[in-house]
Amino acid sequence: MRALVTGGAGFIGSTLVDALLARGDDVLVVDDLSSGKRGNLAPGVELTELDIRDTGELAKLTAEFRPDAVYHLAAQIDVRTSMADPVHDASVNVLGTLSVLQAARDAGAGAVVVCSTGGAIYGDGAPLPTTEDEQPEPESPYGMSKLAAERYTRFFVRAHGLPALVLRFANVYGPRQHPAGGAGVVSLFCDRARTGQRPTVFGDGGQTRDFLFVGDVARAALASADRLLAGELAGEVFNVGTGTESTITELAATIGRIAGLDADGFAPEFTPARPGELRRSCLDPSRGLAALGLPSPTTLTDGLAATWAWHRARPGQL
Amino acid sequence: MRALVTGGAGFIGSTLVDALLARGDDVLVVDDLSSGKRGNLAPGVELTELDIRDTGELAKLTAEFRPDAVYHLAAQIDVRTSMADPVHDASVNVLGTLSVLQAARDAGAGAVVVCSTGGAIYGDGAPLPTTEDEQPEPESPYGMSKLAAERYTRFFVRAHGLPALVLRFANVYGPRQHPAGGAGVVSLFCDRARTGQRPTVFGDGGQTRDFLFVGDVARAALASADRLLAGELAGEVFNVGTGTESTITELAATIGRIAGLDADGFAPEFTPARPGELRRSCLDPSRGLAALGLPSPTTLTDGLAATWAWHRARPGQL
Repeated sequence: MRALVTGGAGFIGSTLVDALLARGDDVLVVDDLSSGKRGNLAPGVELTELDIRDTGELAKLTAEFRPDAVYHLAAQIDVRTSMADPVHDASVNVLGTLSVLQAARDAGAGAVVVCSTGGAIYGDGAPLPTTEDEQPEPESPYGMSKLAAERYTRFFVRAHGLPALVLRFANVYGPRQHPAGGAGVVSLFCDRARTGQRPTVFGDGGQTRDFLFVGDVARAALASADRLLAGELAGEVFNVGTGTESTITELAATIGRIAGLDADGFAPEFTPARPGELRRSCLDPSRGLAALGLPSPTTLTDGLAATWAWHRARPGQL
Repeated sequence: MRALVTGGAGFIGSTLVDALLARGDDVLVVDDLSSGKRGNLAPGVELTELDIRDTGELAKLTAEFRPDAVYHLAAQIDVRTSMADPVHDASVNVLGTLSVLQAARDAGAGAVVVCSTGGAIYGDGAPLPTTEDEQPEPESPYGMSKLAAERYTRFFVRAHGLPALVLRFANVYGPRQHPAGGAGVVSLFCDRARTGQRPTVFGDGGQTRDFLFVGDVARAALASADRLLAGELAGEVFNVGTGTESTITELAATIGRIAGLDADGFAPEFTPARPGELRRSCLDPSRGLAALGLPSPTTLTDGLAATWAWHRARPGQL
């Protein structure tokens, strides 16, 4: 199978690329390397350095490669950046997604998996764990651009018969993640543990997140493309999460324990809460797990152990 | 008062500019003349030819002019264009609106009136007449870009204290409208009546619209800015419509009657329905009328009489 992965040199994208290569797919990565890194990719992986907003070049490249499946992960992912520069955020996430949808349609792709956010698309008052039936009420421009991209995806399904679906990710963590990412707190805390520093917690540490191991994301994306290629699930929107809430304080304690640090030495340093941050977030993944035939998500302990092993093996700075 | 009107050389924009001039406001029009025309503006009105997506130039111009009120009407308004080129549509309507919001905020504007659509933002199954409480479910990329622009507007209210509100227009008609516009059917039928041709009706003619006279739109926009400048109504979203449904067949008959044509001579020619067209559309304007202190909307007969008078006085082609 031929797979085109936008944002494939990023943290999540490169993990997906590894999974595609492992099953023998022919992979083309499109990445502008604005945050992705060539070093994330296995040697020999084909990478075209391109901004997805370059509709002409992207359409040409996609038509030439003729992918069976397109995995669209390229995005502006930082909530704070979206607040400071919503034009840039919307340009990448809205126009960029439209550009990918058009290119995939024109190239006759049999599956288009569009990656969105579950952590930033539901409002602060949404019931937890949140299902896909909950009406999105994004608070940040990042959530708004992702919601618009979702609507355009469903328009392409309706109007052009594009075999596409949307995955809304919880707070993804794992090896290769840079601390600036959406669930960067895991990466940051691991890095603190590695360098003998204490973790910094904003607010009282009781805010919760649904931490999702990156391996589960790759599995969900592969299963989505397979179902689309089988003619199923076009137009669907699925949460991808664990259904388990963890507080930031719990997260710090678990990382400290896995790293073999004593509780006092890795005790959090508390600083004032950041305005606009969600208090609680947790996705109900049941609908997607059932529809995609996926196993239970990786537990936080197992996922953190794998993440910590990667951090511990790194000699320098992230 | 100093008023900046984006899209001010267009059909609706130039009508608003006339109303602003009539009450003595100091007006600056920003229009790229992609569909607006200098000829729509009264002699002496200051016009800067500029694409609103040019964030740097727009910010500079707005900061220099220091408007009390910004009326944002510049938009890609054609549903069919949005379906054929959603990137262009989103670029103008999403990035362009963000650019206007940023410029207004940075210039310290006291009121920002953002014009949206009621005709294309609610789904086909919405109860009629539709209130603002109905969850938007746009079917076209045009409706999606407008909905995204609304969300960004409310974000600027929340995050930056921008005194802005959103007006969702029904199908606006009146003098100066080009047949290609959203409610272009009125303009088209008037032009047919003027040139002795019969009106063309898509489908059975039983589809309904909420036809809103452009003078009512200008009144709603002025009242909105006044309330915002008084520190009220920021973040609100109001329908602007009549609450009355009219079928296309009724519309044709009324125009024929006003134009003094006999029913047979102006009988519609029926052609196949256009796919994707809404069957029925009608906005409930009560919330906005009450909040803005507006009189009852112009009746269809009165509005069409004014529109017909303008068409009759035109010697050449539209």
